[in-house]
Amino acid sequence: MIRMSLTVALLVAAAAPLAAQQQQAAPVIVDGRIAAMRDDALANDHYAWDIVEGLTTEVGQRLAGTDAEARARAWAVKRLTAMGFADVRVEEFPVPVWTRGAESAEILSPFPQKLAVAALGNSASTGPAGVTGEIVAYNSVEELRAAPDAAVKGKIVFIDHNMKPTQDGSSYGPGGTPRRSGPTLASKKGAIAIIVRSAGTDLHRNPHTGVQTFGDGATPIPAGAISVPDALQLQRILKRGQPVTLRLTLVSQTRQGTSGNVIAEIPGRDPSLAPILVGGHLDSWDLGTGAIDDASGVAIATAAAKRIMDGGRPLRTIRIVWFGSEEIGLFGGLDYRARYGKLPHYALLESDFGADRIWRVESQLGKDRLDEARRIGAALAPLGIVTGSFEEADGSDIGPMLADGLPGVGLSQDGTRYFDYHHTPDDTLDKIDPAQLKQNVAAWTAALAILAGPIEPNASPTKRKR
Amino acid sequence: MIRMSLTVALLVAAAAPLAAQQQQAAPVIVDGRIAAMRDDALANDHYAWDIVEGLTTEVGQRLAGTDAEARARAWAVKRLTAMGFADVRVEEFPVPVWTRGAESAEILSPFPQKLAVAALGNSASTGPAGVTGEIVAYNSVEELRAAPDAAVKGKIVFIDHNMKPTQDGSSYGPGGTPRRSGPTLASKKGAIAIIVRSAGTDLHRNPHTGVQTFGDGATPIPAGAISVPDALQLQRILKRGQPVTLRLTLVSQTRQGTSGNVIAEIPGRDPSLAPILVGGHLDSWDLGTGAIDDASGVAIATAAAKRIMDGGRPLRTIRIVWFGSEEIGLFGGLDYRARYGKLPHYALLESDFGADRIWRVESQLGKDRLDEARRIGAALAPLGIVTGSFEEADGSDIGPMLADGLPGVGLSQDGTRYFDYHHTPDDTLDKIDPAQLKQNVAAWTAALAILAGPIEPNASPTKRKR
Repeated sequence: MIRMSLTVALLVAAAAPLAAQQQQAAPVIVDGRIAAMRDDALANDHYAWDIVEGLTTEVGQRLAGTDAEARARAWAVKRLTAMGFADVRVEEFPVPVWTRGAESAEILSPFPQKLAVAALGNSASTGPAGVTGEIVAYNSVEELRAAPDAAVKGKIVFIDHNMKPTQDGSSYGPGGTPRRSGPTLASKKGAIAIIVRSAGTDLHRNPHTGVQTFGDGATPIPAGAISVPDALQLQRILKRGQPVTLRLTLVSQTRQGTSGNVIAEIPGRDPSLAPILVGGHLDSWDLGTGAIDDASGVAIATAAAKRIMDGGRPLRTIRIVWFGSEEIGLFGGLDYRARYGKLPHYALLESDFGADRIWRVESQLGKDRLDEARRIGAALAPLGIVTGSFEEADGSDIGPMLADGLPGVGLSQDGTRYFDYHHTPDDTLDKIDPAQLKQNVAAWTAALAILAGPIEPNASPTKRKR
Repeated sequence: MIRMSLTVALLVAAAAPLAAQQQQAAPVIVDGRIAAMRDDALANDHYAWDIVEGLTTEVGQRLAGTDAEARARAWAVKRLTAMGFADVRVEEFPVPVWTRGAESAEILSPFPQKLAVAALGNSASTGPAGVTGEIVAYNSVEELRAAPDAAVKGKIVFIDHNMKPTQDGSSYGPGGTPRRSGPTLASKKGAIAIIVRSAGTDLHRNPHTGVQTFGDGATPIPAGAISVPDALQLQRILKRGQPVTLRLTLVSQTRQGTSGNVIAEIPGRDPSLAPILVGGHLDSWDLGTGAIDDASGVAIATAAAKRIMDGGRPLRTIRIVWFGSEEIGLFGGLDYRARYGKLPHYALLESDFGADRIWRVESQLGKDRLDEARRIGAALAPLGIVTGSFEEADGSDIGPMLADGLPGVGLSQDGTRYFDYHHTPDDTLDKIDPAQLKQNVAAWTAALAILAGPIEPNASPTKRKR
């Protein structure tokens, strides 16, 4: 019900002129060959599962700039080559590397007990002895901002909040604010350390890590996230009204390192045409095996491209990019943009929101490609996918290029349970539902088949139907 | 449907003679005052929540024999006294104390990655350097037993299994066998260490600890549990067919310490009558705050007793026992049995299976008290509780005394999600559903009101109705 109303609202909003509405009301015929490719993917795809299972099992976590990420690049080159893609290559770039050491958080008084904590990216190191201080608590970054510096100076700041699950992931904006903005603000006000409630929607004692960057001239301080149950516990303890003393140990190291994008292609029949970029990111946080963030993303994009290639040769070149170092600041996307961002692209597509079912397709292909956008919507509708805006798409690594005005298509996954696992030790293969993963591949295959232009079947006597 | 069939089956099984069946078919009238007490608890109880919230917040984990358990006893004495119970006391006893230190498990080859591990109780310590060895895997204790010693000697044993949720917790028997029997068996066969799949039904990377005891002359070896997702991951890695090398670090210490039972009473109107024992256990494992195991148990039993006391003075004495050191081997129950087990008890009741709704009542009150047992069943039926066997009850601390033949009543909680959290860091207050906790108190209050005999109302002008 809600989904239906949403569709109507979006379509009305997107198609304001009457002429456009009438045009939209006309039925769009889905090419039979594309429908067949879509349905075959839905029923039979194994490429995506094979990639996500292989990458998470044989490499595991792939923190940006580390040896593990380098092993992942080697794995990717081997796999993409074995799958038959052309021009498989690595494009390296330098990155700052932050690595986690021992970490613990222990309330010393009034009620001695341990809290589950994980350092945030770029946290300063406490050293093995840790830091000890009294907790001063706020319910938002705004509350902290409004507090007098004297109330914060020399203390350990705690910022609470209350992030709830949303289908479109929109609660990650406010839910992630304490993590993103809290450390800099606490440092500027003289705090000796900060802990934030995890940007998570679960009730498990696995903290959600994530990147933050000290800006505005702030001196780095130790910065960690405590799990949601621990945040609730800390609130109960604080409500008793006695001073709460915490010993926080967050050991970490920083150095310079190397990351890279892994790129592969399906050459189009017409090399003069602008390529289509499809991708996800290869790196992950270090706590889990990065199954939903983002082994599934590279798997979905690559499986769809492979299915196009299995069908023959598309008109346009499809370029697969497994971005490096997304988690620590979109380094892979920015490196790609620096190298290729001024060149024409026919469309950019990225998968970086898990592997649950796609429920919406959006696009920013320009006004002269509305028919194409509607053909994509029509081809995806049988998968239970609604058509949203024709004026925006999104993505993390491709985000800056979309903002530059390059065309793109966005396939929105259901994020209702995504932030139960995101950036935690629980981001593991068992969280991926194989049936929903196939639905992702089916949607991507259909969208890509439309964008890539007519596919000329391979010269196989049994497959050729002309 | 299943529940209905089960009820019928249990009733038929329990009441084989025709005469008994007819007797059972006769309607049992529930005393109006008892029904009112039950319904008031269901709607309004706050005693149980207050205890479980207070104990888990102000004490947290309460590992047997530690200072934390001593703090919990002090908290219990203060709370039970404040609630108005009589003769509040601690009965101490000595226990062996095993405490956890640093722990980690890291696959060194072929695919380097960390696994989430927790040492099992009484594990030998690896020391900070850990032990390194090749993994040899089995799918059951039976498989390990059948293996030649040469296959195990010098290796790290891994035992997998596949525990599924059950309403009555029956899968904990086989699911817990690798933990309970694996370490001794692996040691006898010359293994240098053992890891088992957690006795858990969840997919979170929080391992389930628990006690095991080296028997049969086995030399203690390091013994840990890995989380269920890690067990699945390790199986995938093993299936690649290459030797798997693990570095396992499980640091621990052992010493002698003191534990104790906290006891409080509601004196009955006739002190010559045998008392009713109601209880749960005060100690917990060290990873969570022991909310469902077993702060909720002491809370439910105590709340029900308090509600009886609020109603007036029962005929029989009610003795509340918060047992110490249950988790490490029923030390509290055995100490109580040594002191009082030869004396008559009118009934023993224990809550130690979380706080989800009670779905069944069983009893072993003897053939001459079948009417009483049926009256309890009738009083509980409106809470959605079915009547099971009249020939058994169960409990952990009271188990040995029930086996001795003392009478008892068992109120069975729904255990479907209990082993998602049991013995993990996730055993925290947020796992308790306040509404289901109240249903527990309601059932306990009604059962206790029947067992304790007529309650003489307190001499309050506003409450007295005669």
